[in-house]
Amino acid sequence: MERLKERVAHIGQYAVTLLKWMVLGGVIGLVGGIIGSLFHIGVDTATQVRLAHSWVLYLMPVGGLAIVGLYRLTKTEGKGTNDVIASVHFGEQVPGLLVPVIFVSTVITHLCGGSAGREGAALQIGGGIGYQAGRLLRLGEKDLPLATLCGMSGVFAALFGTPLTATVFALEVISVGVLYYAGLVPCLTAALTGYLVSVLMGVPPTRFTVTVPGLEVRTMLLVMVLALLCAVVSILFCRGLHGVERLLKRTLKNPYLRVAVGAAVLIGLTLLTNGDYNGAGMEVIGRAIAGQADPWAWVWKLLFTAITIGCGFKGGEVVPSFFVGAAFGCVAAGWLGLPAGFGAAMGLVSVFCGAVNCPLASIILSVELFGSGDLLYFAMACSISYLISGYCGLYSSQTILYSKLRAEFINVRTHE
Amino acid sequence: MERLKERVAHIGQYAVTLLKWMVLGGVIGLVGGIIGSLFHIGVDTATQVRLAHSWVLYLMPVGGLAIVGLYRLTKTEGKGTNDVIASVHFGEQVPGLLVPVIFVSTVITHLCGGSAGREGAALQIGGGIGYQAGRLLRLGEKDLPLATLCGMSGVFAALFGTPLTATVFALEVISVGVLYYAGLVPCLTAALTGYLVSVLMGVPPTRFTVTVPGLEVRTMLLVMVLALLCAVVSILFCRGLHGVERLLKRTLKNPYLRVAVGAAVLIGLTLLTNGDYNGAGMEVIGRAIAGQADPWAWVWKLLFTAITIGCGFKGGEVVPSFFVGAAFGCVAAGWLGLPAGFGAAMGLVSVFCGAVNCPLASIILSVELFGSGDLLYFAMACSISYLISGYCGLYSSQTILYSKLRAEFINVRTHE
Repeated sequence: MERLKERVAHIGQYAVTLLKWMVLGGVIGLVGGIIGSLFHIGVDTATQVRLAHSWVLYLMPVGGLAIVGLYRLTKTEGKGTNDVIASVHFGEQVPGLLVPVIFVSTVITHLCGGSAGREGAALQIGGGIGYQAGRLLRLGEKDLPLATLCGMSGVFAALFGTPLTATVFALEVISVGVLYYAGLVPCLTAALTGYLVSVLMGVPPTRFTVTVPGLEVRTMLLVMVLALLCAVVSILFCRGLHGVERLLKRTLKNPYLRVAVGAAVLIGLTLLTNGDYNGAGMEVIGRAIAGQADPWAWVWKLLFTAITIGCGFKGGEVVPSFFVGAAFGCVAAGWLGLPAGFGAAMGLVSVFCGAVNCPLASIILSVELFGSGDLLYFAMACSISYLISGYCGLYSSQTILYSKLRAEFINVRTHE
Repeated sequence: MERLKERVAHIGQYAVTLLKWMVLGGVIGLVGGIIGSLFHIGVDTATQVRLAHSWVLYLMPVGGLAIVGLYRLTKTEGKGTNDVIASVHFGEQVPGLLVPVIFVSTVITHLCGGSAGREGAALQIGGGIGYQAGRLLRLGEKDLPLATLCGMSGVFAALFGTPLTATVFALEVISVGVLYYAGLVPCLTAALTGYLVSVLMGVPPTRFTVTVPGLEVRTMLLVMVLALLCAVVSILFCRGLHGVERLLKRTLKNPYLRVAVGAAVLIGLTLLTNGDYNGAGMEVIGRAIAGQADPWAWVWKLLFTAITIGCGFKGGEVVPSFFVGAAFGCVAAGWLGLPAGFGAAMGLVSVFCGAVNCPLASIILSVELFGSGDLLYFAMACSISYLISGYCGLYSSQTILYSKLRAEFINVRTHE
């Protein structure tokens, strides 16, 4: 009888956990989904305005000064995605003010044509929502990180329409070589809820169509070479972004001056190019996957993004990494004799994987973006890119708990 | 200059690791693919013979005695999948003789109509090949486990034609809550090679077609209920198998007597039923996914498998878990008002997930078996089944490093 009671209590514990996270994940996903969808609509509207009125570009210095002022005013200077990751690691606080601040700053960045994504912002908005919700509900130190992860996946899912990628990404991005399995149900619930909300609010999910060759050895070997090249590009991407940021910080110590100079340079570069490198560039990514890309597009995008983020504008690095990967993959496919669109799809996923060190999220991203016909090529490309990119990564607060090289526990940080 | 040298050496280390595992994984995958394909052909031929000559059933006691004798003769008694998992954990030896012994025993089991799978055998054959290859090549203690994992995924991929599932399964099955990322490139290379070899040797990959409802809230809620029920079935499955095995061992201490009695009981049960529960039962699984299953088929299969494995026959528990899940899911879908074939597919993946504690491998299994149209339903079902099945599992040598309930490091064993 005692034993039966114990057993029932044991099973009850799991049922209660399931129910708890269904509700919590659902609520966080609902809030995250609404705010994430509004954010998506905000960024889209800003982009439409910019495209309709080309003179808005010249407001870039003003926009930059406003962003720096906003961060200074709210005492959130220097806070970003790294702090959200650190919060999951060490339970540090995610400032609640970060949510509106990153929201507005990213919309401003897109309005004036800065080159940035939106999922860095999504992670911060989501992480902030999740963390604050967890605090409000007085979750303990073992549950609070899961709430933060819930928020991250909910908003990510609402923005991209890829709920499973959002889930696995949130679980995988915190530590290299570790997946936070305990967050599976919470994050998936939040991501699904966020996604459904975004669909109801009219946000279209990101999808591409790509024709993929059948599985054969020759193509597989070429994909491996392409993945190797993409891993190198992902290293250049991370180093480029971090290097330019450091350089600008060292040479221009005043943040107002820095953002003004950066904006001026960006305006100059925009006038030199055709506008492809301003904003997120989703339509350029689409063109690359359809088989069209300028040979140097990936270098331009890297440069634009490095200056935009480095001088103080806000947004994210994930869509730029998609852009750089797709544009590079499209061009490199030509050298290797692979179909250009297929190369672009491969490049998108591989460079993302190398930059964020999340191979499983990247493989699932390929399924959610492109369908499952080509799973094995993508899986091979992601695992190679994951290995070769080493401990180079976008997020310096990622810890590396297990070696990429052998079955060994290590505990270090990614570096740029 | 020094710094440059260091950097080149650093990058070189990754390139060398990549090359090393491409070659090692390829070789292990090649050997594993050939032996795995032969094994597949052997089991298939045995099944054909059994179906053509119904009197072969009565040879079951003789077959059982031969198996027990074989294990005794080669001093591999009691060795099995658990030892392969333990070898990856602690570097213990996987006896080389296990490879031919499990090969022959499984073919005998299928010949006389025992109810068993083939992937338990596949993991042992593969693990044995990988471990012995690693020893032969004098790999160190950090690399030897990866070689064992390579073998496991190579043979698994050859048998099922699902290379990515094979990869993630090998990386995920060792410890609950931990994924062996360092094995990604090695295992994927081995799995792809094994798969390609199996295709060349004429082994057809396992695939099913299932029609899946579009994503909507009502269906999602019903899927959650189904997943909960499947988690309970997976617990019954593991407990049933382990319980019957313990009971038989306790009541019939002599292994020859045990297998003879078990065989006699199985012959009796076979005469009572229609033959659906002998062998692997892939065609019954196919029927369930097409929407047809007897209401009690899952209970019968559980019973047949528990006696088969418990009394000393060999094979695996994974295909039986597919069978039980598909048959149960098909029936339960009727209660819930879900399409029967969809319920069967959901049940197959969920019960497998609950039994082996590998949620990501299960999600990827759903993509490889059924395509990506229904990813989110499967993902939700797997994550619920993973959580609710608790620390119950097929493999008692699985360690649980991270809690399923919260973000917490624990370090215990699965139990039945």
